[in-house]
Amino acid sequence: MSNKKYQIVVIGAGPAAVVSALTAKKYYPDKSVLLVKKYEIGVIPCGIPYMFYSLSAPEKNIMSYDPLIKNGVDVLTDEAIELDRTKKTVKTLGGDVIDFEKLILALGSKPITLNIPGFDLKGVFPIKKEFNYLKEVVDWVKRSKRILILGGGFIGVEFADELANYKDKEIVLVELRPAILANSFDSEFSGLARERLRAKGVKVLTDTKVLGFEGKDGVVKYVELSNGQSLEIDCVISGIGALPNTDLAVAAGLDIGKGKGVWVDEYMRTSDLDIFAIGDCAGKRDFFTRRDLSVMLASTATAEARIAGASLYKIKVVRENKGTIAVFSTFIDGLALGSAGMTESFAKSAGFEVVVGNAEAVDKHPAALPGASKVKVKLIFAEQSGIILGGQVAGGTSAGELINIIGMAIQKKVSINELEMLQMATHPYLTSAPTVYPIVAAAIDAGKKL
Amino acid sequence: MSNKKYQIVVIGAGPAAVVSALTAKKYYPDKSVLLVKKYEIGVIPCGIPYMFYSLSAPEKNIMSYDPLIKNGVDVLTDEAIELDRTKKTVKTLGGDVIDFEKLILALGSKPITLNIPGFDLKGVFPIKKEFNYLKEVVDWVKRSKRILILGGGFIGVEFADELANYKDKEIVLVELRPAILANSFDSEFSGLARERLRAKGVKVLTDTKVLGFEGKDGVVKYVELSNGQSLEIDCVISGIGALPNTDLAVAAGLDIGKGKGVWVDEYMRTSDLDIFAIGDCAGKRDFFTRRDLSVMLASTATAEARIAGASLYKIKVVRENKGTIAVFSTFIDGLALGSAGMTESFAKSAGFEVVVGNAEAVDKHPAALPGASKVKVKLIFAEQSGIILGGQVAGGTSAGELINIIGMAIQKKVSINELEMLQMATHPYLTSAPTVYPIVAAAIDAGKKL
Repeated sequence: MSNKKYQIVVIGAGPAAVVSALTAKKYYPDKSVLLVKKYEIGVIPCGIPYMFYSLSAPEKNIMSYDPLIKNGVDVLTDEAIELDRTKKTVKTLGGDVIDFEKLILALGSKPITLNIPGFDLKGVFPIKKEFNYLKEVVDWVKRSKRILILGGGFIGVEFADELANYKDKEIVLVELRPAILANSFDSEFSGLARERLRAKGVKVLTDTKVLGFEGKDGVVKYVELSNGQSLEIDCVISGIGALPNTDLAVAAGLDIGKGKGVWVDEYMRTSDLDIFAIGDCAGKRDFFTRRDLSVMLASTATAEARIAGASLYKIKVVRENKGTIAVFSTFIDGLALGSAGMTESFAKSAGFEVVVGNAEAVDKHPAALPGASKVKVKLIFAEQSGIILGGQVAGGTSAGELINIIGMAIQKKVSINELEMLQMATHPYLTSAPTVYPIVAAAIDAGKKL
Repeated sequence: MSNKKYQIVVIGAGPAAVVSALTAKKYYPDKSVLLVKKYEIGVIPCGIPYMFYSLSAPEKNIMSYDPLIKNGVDVLTDEAIELDRTKKTVKTLGGDVIDFEKLILALGSKPITLNIPGFDLKGVFPIKKEFNYLKEVVDWVKRSKRILILGGGFIGVEFADELANYKDKEIVLVELRPAILANSFDSEFSGLARERLRAKGVKVLTDTKVLGFEGKDGVVKYVELSNGQSLEIDCVISGIGALPNTDLAVAAGLDIGKGKGVWVDEYMRTSDLDIFAIGDCAGKRDFFTRRDLSVMLASTATAEARIAGASLYKIKVVRENKGTIAVFSTFIDGLALGSAGMTESFAKSAGFEVVVGNAEAVDKHPAALPGASKVKVKLIFAEQSGIILGGQVAGGTSAGELINIIGMAIQKKVSINELEMLQMATHPYLTSAPTVYPIVAAAIDAGKKL
């Protein structure tokens, strides 16, 4: 046991923790900064599905903490178990007591588990962001023939796509709702994803519930589904959502928001002005309504980390957390899908009067160029004001940055008219033709309906 | 000879002409619309270099006028030779006299020719946007062994890259200025392009002037350069710029702007309120300074076409032509390069006090994923206000849409702080990691210097 003294302490190991520590050191170069992480080896969260086939070894998805050390941030591997707000100390499992002036909590999330029979059997794996745990899952998956994937959100869908690369394995994906990826996409887009998975040999069961698992010698062996089927399985990958990891914050008496994350203001400050919360453990607000939301994305987390890191002592720059636009992309068997802001169905259920525009084009021009793919864009606008509320893209790899053009438009509250007049770079090998550029064409299609 | 009567007449064959006719028909479905084009077969302008190798036949780069006919626009192949503003008629070479209420001039540009000995020899080809002419050039190029390319702008550079695919041809590119692509890129970016061309076997001569050509039997055979060299050549491709095609407008007494294009107001109206000019033939203003500019891009042209088409009778929607941000991309031997707004060197010469940010990242994460490329971003901001003035990108194909994110940021006058907080979608296969996303990282780098 020893006593340590740092001016800025960050607790966490993921992208939010790393970026907040680097940002803090940039804005406050004279302050001492310590990052405390629980595990020796960290993992790149978005790369987790690709540890199972695409990457030659799980070790290729390791998070590097070198930039921290290079920039003068100290790194300690230990678990923070107690936060004393009066003394302004953090106690660790290893027995250290660390003094801080400013504390950043980047505690992440924990996977939701189901209270059904057999969920605790061996071979049932909720996806956690822990390297050694994931290595065990990789080994188990490689030995398995029949794999059940629980949940058709992006974790489940990316796992299904990745594991279907093994030609000798049977993959079944089970989703409770009528469509996969339903949080981010309207049905005409999620349908494309489903079609890709089916073509790759994945059996996708929607409107289906898992009732329980049965095991043999403590190892999962059967799953019972709400459709009456009982399937033999060797492995379960569970990606049915996550909850903010708030234990440390709750025990210290910090406020929790309605969305179950640590309550934070626009500068990521908790109810204690010296303690910040960022990333999955922190509450999120919707960009349009400011209602609580439970979106967990690394991109949102790193944006929050940059706000917190810059606002620790004095708010030097008026930087707001505008609320999350939940901009996100995924890649399924060569099909890139992106979503930003509200889907049409969500916007309607949230009480917005909307007008929608659609467009399709080829992502090179002329279309005869090698490697051309179709790209499909949908934009959702508020009917009266014409302000963009959301967008979805499906296509080749260029869709990955197309969605970020739409994301920028949402963050800047761009109107239909502005998008119709958008100046964009086009090139035969890189984009659609200027005459049919799909973001512009979708805006025009929406404009027509006004 | 016959008399025709249309309410809306468009003169031109390129993307601006087509998009303005379609937009006019959309906004004024009850008006009759005619498009008059000079040649039977039209060509997709940006695809011209790729008619020489990448496309299996020049015919693969033909512009389709089917969307016009499908949408109720009449199409006439004939040359407009006289515009009578008092009678409101256009006379054609074929002898037609066409009445109009509203006229859109999309007359395009003509390549600059040099007043040097031998420029009129056979085998010297200024690049025109005419299909039959280009077919002749393709045939000539295929028969040639030694090809000289005049001009290191994007036409010259794309031709050099394309023709270097022929392993049996020698390609020499000559540029007057110290760097290629100097209008759009600072030297650290244009240097990458030059490096690619050199690696592909193109000899790039900068700071070099062509003094004249010598021929044999009327066919070009030698070029004399300012560096004292005389080279044997079989063919010259000249891409040294273009001038607005304003003959018809000048003869009709329309005002010409300082930039040599037809003068237009914010709604693309010429000095005659019933006559609009768009695309290469129309004057351009710089987005930041409103000074005259001579940028000619299909993307600018189509944006102008949409403004004109919507504003013919009454200005229904307040749509401004914000001035060109000259957003543009090119692709050289697998390297995608994009530029938007001002370069650092241009901004300084235009009197701006700037701060610059740079970043490099890998365009997938983890970097071990197959197909990952490096991506390099430079952003230029106004020092006092922090408003973005320009940006440049070099990388894999994703750079083609990355530059459009920057273009959107410029059009919305985004600040350093906003970019530092940008929410963007990231995915292992599609983008850089959220911790190092290069647009955000370049903004942070600039912010550090304030």
